[in-house]
Amino acid sequence: MRFESPHRDAFTDRRILVTGGLGFIGSNLVLALAKLGADVTVVDSLIPEYGGNLRNLEGVRGKVRVYMTDVRDRASLPPIIRRQDILFNLAGQTSHMDSMTDPETDLDINARAQLSLLEACRLHNPEIRIVFASTRQIYGRPIYLPVDESHPLRPVDVNGINKLAGEGYHLLYSEVHGIRSTVLRLTNTIGPRMRVRDARQTFVGLWIRKLLSGEPFEVWGGTQMRDFTYVDDAVEAFLLAAARCEAIDRIYNVGGTPPITLLQLAELLVEINGEGSFVAKEFPDERRKIDIGDFYADDTLIRETLGWTHHTGLEGAIEKTLDYYRHELPFYV
Amino acid sequence: MRFESPHRDAFTDRRILVTGGLGFIGSNLVLALAKLGADVTVVDSLIPEYGGNLRNLEGVRGKVRVYMTDVRDRASLPPIIRRQDILFNLAGQTSHMDSMTDPETDLDINARAQLSLLEACRLHNPEIRIVFASTRQIYGRPIYLPVDESHPLRPVDVNGINKLAGEGYHLLYSEVHGIRSTVLRLTNTIGPRMRVRDARQTFVGLWIRKLLSGEPFEVWGGTQMRDFTYVDDAVEAFLLAAARCEAIDRIYNVGGTPPITLLQLAELLVEINGEGSFVAKEFPDERRKIDIGDFYADDTLIRETLGWTHHTGLEGAIEKTLDYYRHELPFYV
Repeated sequence: MRFESPHRDAFTDRRILVTGGLGFIGSNLVLALAKLGADVTVVDSLIPEYGGNLRNLEGVRGKVRVYMTDVRDRASLPPIIRRQDILFNLAGQTSHMDSMTDPETDLDINARAQLSLLEACRLHNPEIRIVFASTRQIYGRPIYLPVDESHPLRPVDVNGINKLAGEGYHLLYSEVHGIRSTVLRLTNTIGPRMRVRDARQTFVGLWIRKLLSGEPFEVWGGTQMRDFTYVDDAVEAFLLAAARCEAIDRIYNVGGTPPITLLQLAELLVEINGEGSFVAKEFPDERRKIDIGDFYADDTLIRETLGWTHHTGLEGAIEKTLDYYRHELPFYV
Repeated sequence: MRFESPHRDAFTDRRILVTGGLGFIGSNLVLALAKLGADVTVVDSLIPEYGGNLRNLEGVRGKVRVYMTDVRDRASLPPIIRRQDILFNLAGQTSHMDSMTDPETDLDINARAQLSLLEACRLHNPEIRIVFASTRQIYGRPIYLPVDESHPLRPVDVNGINKLAGEGYHLLYSEVHGIRSTVLRLTNTIGPRMRVRDARQTFVGLWIRKLLSGEPFEVWGGTQMRDFTYVDDAVEAFLLAAARCEAIDRIYNVGGTPPITLLQLAELLVEINGEGSFVAKEFPDERRKIDIGDFYADDTLIRETLGWTHHTGLEGAIEKTLDYYRHELPFYV
């Protein structure tokens, strides 16, 4: 991982809280922050269906504080939040299908707990600086491409509705209560430490596990276009947002590499891995109803305003991810 | 109240549930439905800060079933929902200020309970027909006027964010689970049975109580433009939506009389009342931060699609409201 000079010193000895810090993007962010000399505290629920995995922080064991606390547990938040300079808020329920079968849990985590976190900040630490992990899911089915930050917000699943509310609270608390928040709307992110047990976080995780286990993976639909961000590049967006972002222009798409179809991605995975196969299938009915079709993000704003860019192309992202799981797969299944 | 022929028979002997049925618009709707021969069940929490008031259904005492149940009480919902043909869903927390000081309660009622209601419908009565009371508050500060249904949704308070989620669930359950919902986005509604104890439902309620009590009322700001719907016209929109609405075009603004400034409204109130006075004041700081500025709705869609129109002008609405509270005020303070 490389970090540009502008934020090299921005995190040294800073007290930083990462919610969802045992998860995929959260843990990569924690590793980067630790390397930059930050004083890092992690909150993670380690709910089995979510992205948290103790293995993700193996490299900084004993160097960061880890609280296994659910962000839904309001009483536990104030003492943790009180001391922090920066909150990277990545706790969330990510599965679109789970949000449809258990909508109330999705609401509790993606909306209610976010409100509790913000209330804790308002009451106990209004000076805190927040960067919130939002999602392209809140746009729903794109009506034009690439999707910029002004695109209408019409989520097509419960997860999208609740994440939209969670994002809305952050913007509102910024506007009304002066608690500075930056919102990053992420697209598909891939890389080491992503959930590969199933498709709850991203279908690419499941594909990679199957590929490395010598099983054919399933491609649903296949003609949908998607863009992909390598996790280090996503991490850099979080760091830049915290280090450079002013109060204005608070919402940024974090885009990815040039879009390709899922079938093309599947072929690329097999090709880079050197072996493996996949089966193209029709969308299951429940899944098709909440599919968003083609999506890729316009990330001009974050490039021009924060100087963000992606450093790792799709081939590189796939190579690094496969390399990681070739050794680490046993800890992730 | 007059009801047009198209839905005269649409409600006879129909089993109809009205949540928030002891509240302002809900109770006026219940009275209309009872007159049309419907078999009406009311659910209302009678939380003192909200709009529910037993006096509101005095005219149909013993003729409608009333459950004093909170829509947040999930266990109580299935047996009530199971038997119904139509659900008019008007339960909600309406105070913008309360949503800022107690955001989690607003979320529980305007988002979480809506999800529970819809889940109960999905599991126990997917054939039910729903009309949901949404609000112009979800548009936030208008970027053009009049505001049509395509206007961006950028709520400026917690109430708007949660109502947007509540509306989103209805549209989603309609789209994905086939539970037919129509959404009515209401603007300022006034008339008999509105809350006059304070400004939690509408500032006009408080103005009217003060006016009739011989006290000067306070106008905050005063140059903001607003449109107003007389409650019988709002009720007709609910009836039309249930009786006529097809699956398409499911979101409708319910607009009002031609917009006027709050100062003009204040003058009109005093003039129609024949006596009284008001004081123009600066916005209190907390209130100014969440004010939406000028708002008036474009209601072309509901006029053209459902044949809705308003029958009572602003003067008539004020006269009828003042007449009602001249006799009824003791039951509402």
